[in-house]
Amino acid sequence: MTYDLIIVGSGPAGMTASVYASRYSLKHIVIGELMGGLAGESHKICNYPSETEISGMELVQKMQKHAEHLGAEIVADKIIDITRKNDLFIAKTQNKKEFTSKTILLASGTERRKLNLKKEKEFLGKGLSYCATCDAMFYRGKTVAVIGGSDSATSAAVYLAKVAKKVYQIYRRAELRGEVAWIEQAKADPKIEIIYNTNVVELLGKEKLNAIKLDQAYKKQTEISVDGLFIEVGFEPNTVLADKLNLKLDEKYHIIVGPGQTASEDGIWAAGDITTNSNSFKQVITACAEGAVAAENIYKYLQLKINQQHAK
Amino acid sequence: MTYDLIIVGSGPAGMTASVYASRYSLKHIVIGELMGGLAGESHKICNYPSETEISGMELVQKMQKHAEHLGAEIVADKIIDITRKNDLFIAKTQNKKEFTSKTILLASGTERRKLNLKKEKEFLGKGLSYCATCDAMFYRGKTVAVIGGSDSATSAAVYLAKVAKKVYQIYRRAELRGEVAWIEQAKADPKIEIIYNTNVVELLGKEKLNAIKLDQAYKKQTEISVDGLFIEVGFEPNTVLADKLNLKLDEKYHIIVGPGQTASEDGIWAAGDITTNSNSFKQVITACAEGAVAAENIYKYLQLKINQQHAK
Repeated sequence: MTYDLIIVGSGPAGMTASVYASRYSLKHIVIGELMGGLAGESHKICNYPSETEISGMELVQKMQKHAEHLGAEIVADKIIDITRKNDLFIAKTQNKKEFTSKTILLASGTERRKLNLKKEKEFLGKGLSYCATCDAMFYRGKTVAVIGGSDSATSAAVYLAKVAKKVYQIYRRAELRGEVAWIEQAKADPKIEIIYNTNVVELLGKEKLNAIKLDQAYKKQTEISVDGLFIEVGFEPNTVLADKLNLKLDEKYHIIVGPGQTASEDGIWAAGDITTNSNSFKQVITACAEGAVAAENIYKYLQLKINQQHAK
Repeated sequence: MTYDLIIVGSGPAGMTASVYASRYSLKHIVIGELMGGLAGESHKICNYPSETEISGMELVQKMQKHAEHLGAEIVADKIIDITRKNDLFIAKTQNKKEFTSKTILLASGTERRKLNLKKEKEFLGKGLSYCATCDAMFYRGKTVAVIGGSDSATSAAVYLAKVAKKVYQIYRRAELRGEVAWIEQAKADPKIEIIYNTNVVELLGKEKLNAIKLDQAYKKQTEISVDGLFIEVGFEPNTVLADKLNLKLDEKYHIIVGPGQTASEDGIWAAGDITTNSNSFKQVITACAEGAVAAENIYKYLQLKINQQHAK
């Protein structure tokens, strides 16, 4: 069986592309490793227009239901390879399935950036986490630190302060950045202590993490005892598939796209956080819009191919 | 009083810009003639991600509530003039109010295109309408015609067929365009008769419209008796403010914008259907995304100005 379109990624961009693909009657499949993408891990989303306040999980589930209502085939799996064969693409998954399609939409988003410190892998799940929404509940009444100064870091600190006894937010710059609404909440919260111009350089502990080392003293100490550490230092695209498909990337490894979300190779589109579009503003709403634009452009591309074949 | 930002237009682009502006603590006001914009007139929206099916009115009201919840000041009025005075903009409204602001976001969308036929103005509200959602109820059990072949025309025909006895959809091209989902519904509906490759060239009737004249015979007739006519032949931007502000437009009068939704003159942004962005795909979701990108870019612009002043 040949699909019109394989959508790689099941976050907001992929789900919206599916909604539009269904409306255009494109035979398509959505294949994603993490249902709902990273948006599903946000504890609170306050800027998706029409939803005053909603959890990331609830929002992505609504999008998934919407896509499924229109007939979407959604598979939880990871595409590990895509090759071309004649005019078609063959996608192979981790679960050893194979799918054939006329077009590809890469909407697989980004992955959490690591600090790349010693023991970072070892301590994962043992006092170290990349997801406050997922793991905050383990730190009720405890002391935690959040590394980072963007919206994700600051909103994580605000969220953690609801359960933890004490939250250190440690940031390498002199001022937090992003939505003032989050920054003001963090600064006003008596449980949150923000440490500026500082980096974490070592993770300490034996079986599990129990302290962190700073690159300069804070209140005369370079070590801070913590029960938990949340690393929120940004996101970067996974380039495996883009590299295999020979796509042009920018200096931050985002897929360079044209106005219709077209990638640099024929038959391939990209949408969402993985692209250079929307002025690199990585939001649920911009990911959705890019998915919509891509699906419409793919529909037109396939229509044109059909018309060209008829003309022959 | 000086605002950070005046948002011109209260449709999805303007409301989303307001949501983001509030999150960034920008002192702003939304001024729009038609609350919710043209999106509010859609009888059914099936492609706003997370809302499987919702009326345009309900969706824009949810967006308005969202913006208001975050503190938005929204005024129903029409801005008729904007001038520069030193570093500020002065906006004048139809109701003779004046607002001063550091930046301007034009998100006033498009207006319904007219046929420019004789008696078109005269028959408005007398058998002639530009909004099926608004006026369908007046044609219960009657015969109507819809002119156009895009999503708005085809979805209007489907909607009208629920109440009218008979719906002619008249289109100048050989095939309807847009979402296959709407096209299939129209073609499957026994009440809808689609007349291709045909233009309406005259509006007939005395006190009110009672027939239309075609540029070629359909079933041997060039006149069709109708009780109502719905004109759905597209949209075009109102260029009054863009012209006053000396903004660059494309050949279809859309405001040319850069990646951050910046217009061609300093201090001015544009978002939504009025712009060249989102590959000219005019959707609620793309308008929202452009509004979000614009608000973030405006916030950064104002921050930079503050930093520059501090540096002096």
